[in-house]
Amino acid sequence: MSGAEIEARAALMRAADVGDTTMGRLVACRGAAGAVEAIAAGALPADFVADEGRQERSPDLGQRLGVWQARLTAADPAADLAAGERAGARLIVPGSPEWPTQLDQLGAGRPLGLWLHGSADLRFSCLRSVSVVGARAASPYGAHVAAEFGVGLGEAGWTVVSGGAFGIDGAAHRGALASESPTVVVLACGVDIVYPSAHHSLFAAVREQGVIISECPPGVHPTRARFLIRNRLIAALSRGTVVVEAALRSGALNTASHALTLNRHLAAVPGPVTSETSAGCHRLLRERKATCVTTPEEMIDLVGVIGGDLAPHPRCPAVPRDRLNEATRKVLDAIPSRGGAGPASIALAAGLSLDTTLSSLGGLAAAGYIERVEKGWRLRRAVPTAYRKADTLPDPVDSSGADAFGEVALFPISSPEA
Amino acid sequence: MSGAEIEARAALMRAADVGDTTMGRLVACRGAAGAVEAIAAGALPADFVADEGRQERSPDLGQRLGVWQARLTAADPAADLAAGERAGARLIVPGSPEWPTQLDQLGAGRPLGLWLHGSADLRFSCLRSVSVVGARAASPYGAHVAAEFGVGLGEAGWTVVSGGAFGIDGAAHRGALASESPTVVVLACGVDIVYPSAHHSLFAAVREQGVIISECPPGVHPTRARFLIRNRLIAALSRGTVVVEAALRSGALNTASHALTLNRHLAAVPGPVTSETSAGCHRLLRERKATCVTTPEEMIDLVGVIGGDLAPHPRCPAVPRDRLNEATRKVLDAIPSRGGAGPASIALAAGLSLDTTLSSLGGLAAAGYIERVEKGWRLRRAVPTAYRKADTLPDPVDSSGADAFGEVALFPISSPEA
Repeated sequence: MSGAEIEARAALMRAADVGDTTMGRLVACRGAAGAVEAIAAGALPADFVADEGRQERSPDLGQRLGVWQARLTAADPAADLAAGERAGARLIVPGSPEWPTQLDQLGAGRPLGLWLHGSADLRFSCLRSVSVVGARAASPYGAHVAAEFGVGLGEAGWTVVSGGAFGIDGAAHRGALASESPTVVVLACGVDIVYPSAHHSLFAAVREQGVIISECPPGVHPTRARFLIRNRLIAALSRGTVVVEAALRSGALNTASHALTLNRHLAAVPGPVTSETSAGCHRLLRERKATCVTTPEEMIDLVGVIGGDLAPHPRCPAVPRDRLNEATRKVLDAIPSRGGAGPASIALAAGLSLDTTLSSLGGLAAAGYIERVEKGWRLRRAVPTAYRKADTLPDPVDSSGADAFGEVALFPISSPEA
Repeated sequence: MSGAEIEARAALMRAADVGDTTMGRLVACRGAAGAVEAIAAGALPADFVADEGRQERSPDLGQRLGVWQARLTAADPAADLAAGERAGARLIVPGSPEWPTQLDQLGAGRPLGLWLHGSADLRFSCLRSVSVVGARAASPYGAHVAAEFGVGLGEAGWTVVSGGAFGIDGAAHRGALASESPTVVVLACGVDIVYPSAHHSLFAAVREQGVIISECPPGVHPTRARFLIRNRLIAALSRGTVVVEAALRSGALNTASHALTLNRHLAAVPGPVTSETSAGCHRLLRERKATCVTTPEEMIDLVGVIGGDLAPHPRCPAVPRDRLNEATRKVLDAIPSRGGAGPASIALAAGLSLDTTLSSLGGLAAAGYIERVEKGWRLRRAVPTAYRKADTLPDPVDSSGADAFGEVALFPISSPEA
């Protein structure tokens, strides 16, 4: 990468708005140095002009050229490069070893260059990365979940990509830092600007362990438009985006739509339906645009290599009666909890043959489920408080909050025939 | 419907386990009276036996016949009918005016009859109905949401169908009762049994305003198997099922799978990922088996008539700058919050022609967004605390928790060229 090419790109980063696709096409057509030359000369290449005329929303090239020209005149790329260097930052451009080639998918909207500030290698860090985005005005729940995702992704060797805002962004980066993993902060202003200013020490920690990046030249302040355009970078850098918490009107949903446009994985973390800060996540789920994820492992399962990064399937609690076969379960269901029933009556209630019933009764007695009493068999009162009389049915709320299945197993009430 | 047919079905409800599909096919083949006759004679019809042999899991018919016969001998259908009548209940069978024909979709697993106890007409009540199911060990969040669904469905003219358990079931019924709507309780025991007993007054209120139903004869107690089989009725009676809260191992998930098998709508309410009682809902969402719903309106949108029961689209909060056109927004973004900038400098930063910029400046000034100062234009400090100096960037957490977009609109920071 020649110094002239880098300086030309630095100049164009001043001339064009971020994400200016017309500029992107001019550079693709003539190279950065050629583009600078054409703009300075006030004469755009004829083939480029013809191509632009065929664009769906063809821009007013005369007006655009005027703006570029005026800004280029005011620009001082050498000073930008010097200022960046003084601040400890570096400019990378397409073709630089550290350039993340997944950004090429942005086509003409690919950034002209990226300013990087930090110790981590951007390209390497983003190979296995997840964008964790969400509301600035996050709830404590959202901040907790974002931090858990940061820690979990980091511990599994995945890099967090996010903005630099309060709320979800900050929590995710802090989680990643806590797991001693690199993390990538994508700013909508120059990398030398600390915005919000209270993130001064967070950004310092990121520069130590990760990297802060921006397509804005040093000294440029954030604007609304730059935040929106910045979001495409967050979506494009990672394999997938997870929205942790987002109101119905939220920048995170803008990032989500970029992820969908780029065919990246999109996930959303559910939250209470009573929380406005989860309403955006729920809309993504409801419209089936996003996959529901509840843990970092599930996110990795979504974006990871098939077979290599599978999330463990959520396990159900096992109860001892799971190990009983069907006939034995039927017999257990037919045994009264008080009094007692003979094998023939139990067989009738269970709907099984006497032989099968007798064999199951033996097994159940050996396993301690039932006991022999004068009138036949009854449930063993192993946990006296959990067993009640069959005809005054037990109050399930008394038992330990087990679900319906577990509890029913505790009172295989005497069948009507008993 | 002849009295003999009803008495025959009452007898078969004693002879067969609930949901016995072999019995269902025998009755389909010979009618209820014919089935009673065949069982009593100990001789199953030859064509039926041949058909059963071709079933995927062909039952041991000899053993099954033996069980049916023994239970039939012990049964006293006339006493059952008298006992039901004494309790104030009624037995309906397929063909009865009150029979909900959507149960026919259960095929051979359709109940032989249903005991009803309550003032509401079951068939009519279930025409527009939603099953609201979930954990017994519900969280306060889940109980709140279930009650909200009960109220919302009831107020919109939809009937709640659910079990009679603590937690979600009870909360949903209470919500429906509060909205003065009928509600349907489906029991896994006789309709004369109050289980759990603490639901005595709830069930009394349901009998007043709705109906309690069961396919078990009077006096029959619940067993684990009966709970599971009962769940198919909850799914089959309504147009769709919503799981409000469910652990990974939960009867509600069993009802959910019945709803899927029956091609009914299935929905799940999200909750905090930190709550175990929402884990089952999240799994349904993650596996894309259920649609995410957050309000009763969204549930009605799912199960209702297309175009007739649409949920209102969640509305985003509107901010004044939404009404500005694109050029004016660009100009607003380019105006500094302190000092001031002349029209030419603003036009350059906004990337617009001077004419467009001048026209937008006039509009913005008239609308009170900006003001003229010595050096040109700057943002108007309408809300002094919300506007800060451009070069010490504002701390977004100070403003009122608005999302990134709203906040960025408050500080269209001076562009780098200004």
